[in-house]
Amino acid sequence: MTDNGHTAVLNPQRVVDDLRELQRLTGDANGAQRLAWTEPWDQARQWLRAKLAELPVEVSVDEAGNVWATLRGASPRALILGSHIDSVPGGGWLDGCLGVAAGLEVLRSWAARGTPPVTLRLAAWAEEEGTQFGLSMFTSHAACGPFDPAALRTARDAHGARLTDVIGRWGVDLDRAGMAARQMENAAAYLELHIEQGPVLESLNLPLAAVLGAMGLERHRLVFRGQTAHAGSTPMALRRDALSAAARFALAVREIAVQHGGVSTVGSLIPRPGIVTAVAGECECTLDQRHIEAPELAAMLTEARAASETIAAEERVEVAWERLYHVPPVRFHEELTALGAQVVGELSGNAYVMPSGPLHDAVVVAQSGVPTAMLFVQSLRGLSHTREEDTREEDLRLAVEALSRLAERTAHWIVENAR
Amino acid sequence: MTDNGHTAVLNPQRVVDDLRELQRLTGDANGAQRLAWTEPWDQARQWLRAKLAELPVEVSVDEAGNVWATLRGASPRALILGSHIDSVPGGGWLDGCLGVAAGLEVLRSWAARGTPPVTLRLAAWAEEEGTQFGLSMFTSHAACGPFDPAALRTARDAHGARLTDVIGRWGVDLDRAGMAARQMENAAAYLELHIEQGPVLESLNLPLAAVLGAMGLERHRLVFRGQTAHAGSTPMALRRDALSAAARFALAVREIAVQHGGVSTVGSLIPRPGIVTAVAGECECTLDQRHIEAPELAAMLTEARAASETIAAEERVEVAWERLYHVPPVRFHEELTALGAQVVGELSGNAYVMPSGPLHDAVVVAQSGVPTAMLFVQSLRGLSHTREEDTREEDLRLAVEALSRLAERTAHWIVENAR
Repeated sequence: MTDNGHTAVLNPQRVVDDLRELQRLTGDANGAQRLAWTEPWDQARQWLRAKLAELPVEVSVDEAGNVWATLRGASPRALILGSHIDSVPGGGWLDGCLGVAAGLEVLRSWAARGTPPVTLRLAAWAEEEGTQFGLSMFTSHAACGPFDPAALRTARDAHGARLTDVIGRWGVDLDRAGMAARQMENAAAYLELHIEQGPVLESLNLPLAAVLGAMGLERHRLVFRGQTAHAGSTPMALRRDALSAAARFALAVREIAVQHGGVSTVGSLIPRPGIVTAVAGECECTLDQRHIEAPELAAMLTEARAASETIAAEERVEVAWERLYHVPPVRFHEELTALGAQVVGELSGNAYVMPSGPLHDAVVVAQSGVPTAMLFVQSLRGLSHTREEDTREEDLRLAVEALSRLAERTAHWIVENAR
Repeated sequence: MTDNGHTAVLNPQRVVDDLRELQRLTGDANGAQRLAWTEPWDQARQWLRAKLAELPVEVSVDEAGNVWATLRGASPRALILGSHIDSVPGGGWLDGCLGVAAGLEVLRSWAARGTPPVTLRLAAWAEEEGTQFGLSMFTSHAACGPFDPAALRTARDAHGARLTDVIGRWGVDLDRAGMAARQMENAAAYLELHIEQGPVLESLNLPLAAVLGAMGLERHRLVFRGQTAHAGSTPMALRRDALSAAARFALAVREIAVQHGGVSTVGSLIPRPGIVTAVAGECECTLDQRHIEAPELAAMLTEARAASETIAAEERVEVAWERLYHVPPVRFHEELTALGAQVVGELSGNAYVMPSGPLHDAVVVAQSGVPTAMLFVQSLRGLSHTREEDTREEDLRLAVEALSRLAERTAHWIVENAR
C-alpha cells in the first residue's frame, strides 16, 4: 500500500483518517463548523480539491458551488457517488462528509485500475443543511430540480442578510445556478452513503442498512383558541383551556403514528399568555408526520385532523390548521436498493432495509429520475447535528467497503442496463 | 337628596358615577392605569381625598402610602371597610376601586346620621396588584404583617429600578412602612367588596356572593428531561419525549383537580429545543393548584407528584419539582361570613357562599387575626385585568346596598361582641 491513493486496494481506514483531518481543519471544540458559504466550508472544498489533485480525475465547481470530480470510463454514462460537504454549526464529524470521503476513496481505488467500464463521478454538494436560509438541499435542487431562482431572489437570513449576497461572495449567481443541471446529463445512477442520524441500527445492533426511500412528510402549524382566564377564579368546568386541548392533541397524534407505523412529532408548543396564573387562551403547536407509504401518511393526517376537531369540540375551543411543508414519500430504485441490501447482507449478516425519516440529497436526485440507492451506517445513540454525533470506526470501515462493493455492482448494472 | 354626601339615604348610583369619574381621570383607551407609585395612581389617591374632604372625617396617609378616613364613633373599636386603589396597567374600571368607592358611600351615609356606635374607617390600600415588583398586597402586608423590610431592600423591577427609589418618590420609606401597623390597633372587623374576577356568579345567574375564604395555593415549576431526537429518524418506540410527558402531566393534574373539587392550571409549558423537527429533550411547565381545604390541597399535590413520577417512568424521562410559592387556605370569620350570606340572600334571593381563588387584601387582614368578611359581585364573562372587565350597573348598585347592610350588622356584632 502507498498513501498517495494510487493503489488497487481499497483503504477504508484512510477514509477515517481523512475525516479526522477534515475535522481538525474545519471544526472546533464545539464541533463541525462547515456552515455553507463560510470560510471553514470553503476550506473543506479546498481540502477536497487538494485530495482530488492527486488522482487522474477532472475537477470542477458547478454554477451552484458543488465540487465535481470525473474519472472518465469506457462509457460516458456516469455513476455518481455523492453527499454534502456542508455541516450545521456545531455539527458532527461525519454528517455529509462521510459520503464525500468514502466516495473519494472509491474513486482512488478505481483510478488505480485503469479505465473503468463507466464514468465514475464524485459530487460534493455545497449546501444540504439549509441552516442559514432554510433551503434544505439547495444545491442538489439547483442541479436536479425543481429550482426556481425567482422564488429565492428575496430570501434573507434571520439577520437580514440576502441569499444573493451571501452566495455571491463565493462566485455563485442565483440566475446561473440552475446551469448545474448540465452535470446530471449523463447520470446513469447515484449512490449516497450517510450516517443514519437515528437510533434504529444501534437498537438492532446492526452496522449497516440499505435505504428503502425517504418518508413522506406532512408538516403543519395548529392554533387552538379558547379563553384566557384566571387560574384561581375559574372553575374547571367553565374553562376553555387551549393548552389542555393541545396536550390532548399531542398525545392523540402520537397514538395515530404508532397505529400506522409512522412517526409523528409535536416539537413546538407555545401557550399564550403562557404564565403560571392564567389558563391559556391560545396554544400554538407544530405537527410533523412522516411515513414511507403515501396512503398511510394521508390517513395519519386525516385522523389527526379528525382528532383535533373532536378534541376542540370537547374542550369548547377552536382549532385552525396551516400547512407548512409537504413532500411525498420517495422510493429509491428497486434494483439498486436490492443490490445495496445484498452488499449489506454480505458484510453484516443481515440484509437490513429501512426507510429514512430525514431527507437527503439522494432524495432530490431520485425525484429527478436518476436511479438512486442509499446506504446508512449506524449512529451511536442516534445523535446528530451535535458534536456528540459519532460512529464506531469499525462500522465506518465496513460502510466504505459497502459503498465500494455497491459502486462495483451498480457499474455492472449500468452496463447491463444499457444493452 | 343632596349631592354633597350629607344625606341619610345611601345612594348606590353615586358609587357608579364616582367610579366612572375616576376612570375618566386615571384611565385611558387601554383601560385603568393606576399602577402603584405612578402619577395616575396618585391622582386616584388625591381624587379620593377630595371626596373625603366633603365629609366630617379625619383623613391621613400611613407610612406605607395607604389612605385612611376615620369617622369617630361612640366606641374607639373600629369597623374597617377597605379595598385597593391601584390597578394593573390596562386594567378594568372596578378591580379594587369598587370597594373603595362603595366604602366611601357607606361612610357618607353614616356621617349623615351623627355619631355611629363604633368607629367607621375606610382603608384605600396603596398596592395590591404587585405589578412592578411582584409584591402582591404589599401595603396591606405593611399594615397587617408579615412584613420584612430587610427582604425587600434589594428588590428591583424588570428594568432594574429599585423598590426603595420607586416608593421613596412618594414619601414611603421601606424602614418606616411597617409603622402602618398602628392603623390596625383598634380594628374590630374588616369588610371588603370586590368584583369576583371569575365566571362563577355569571354562570349561576347570581349578582352577589359572600366569600367563604381564599383558596390555599401550591405553585411549582417542573422540568421533564428526556432526549432530544430527530423527528424523522427516531421511531416512536425509541423516543424519550419530554413534551409528551408534560402533556400527560397537564391532563393528569386537571383530572386530579376535578376529583377534589379544586382548581389546577398548567399555564406555562416550554419544550426545548422547541422546534418542529426535534423531539423535545426537555420540557418545563408550571403547576398552580388551589383548594379552600388544606387537606384536599395537600392531597392534590401528593397525587400530582405521584402522577408525574408514574408518567416519567412510563415515558423513560426524568422529572424534577421546584416549589415556587405556597399559601395555606384562609377562612374568613364564620359569624361575619354568615351575616354576609344573610345580606346576599335578602338582596338576591340566594344566600350564596363561594371561595375566592385569587388572593385579596382581606386575606392579609384575616390572617392577622382581625375578624374579616368579604363580598363578591358578578363579573361579566369572568374577565379581569383587562379593560374589558365589566359588571352590570344594577349589580354594582345591589353590591353597594349589600356592603351597607353588612356594615350595619357588623357594627352591631362588634357592639354585641364587646359585651
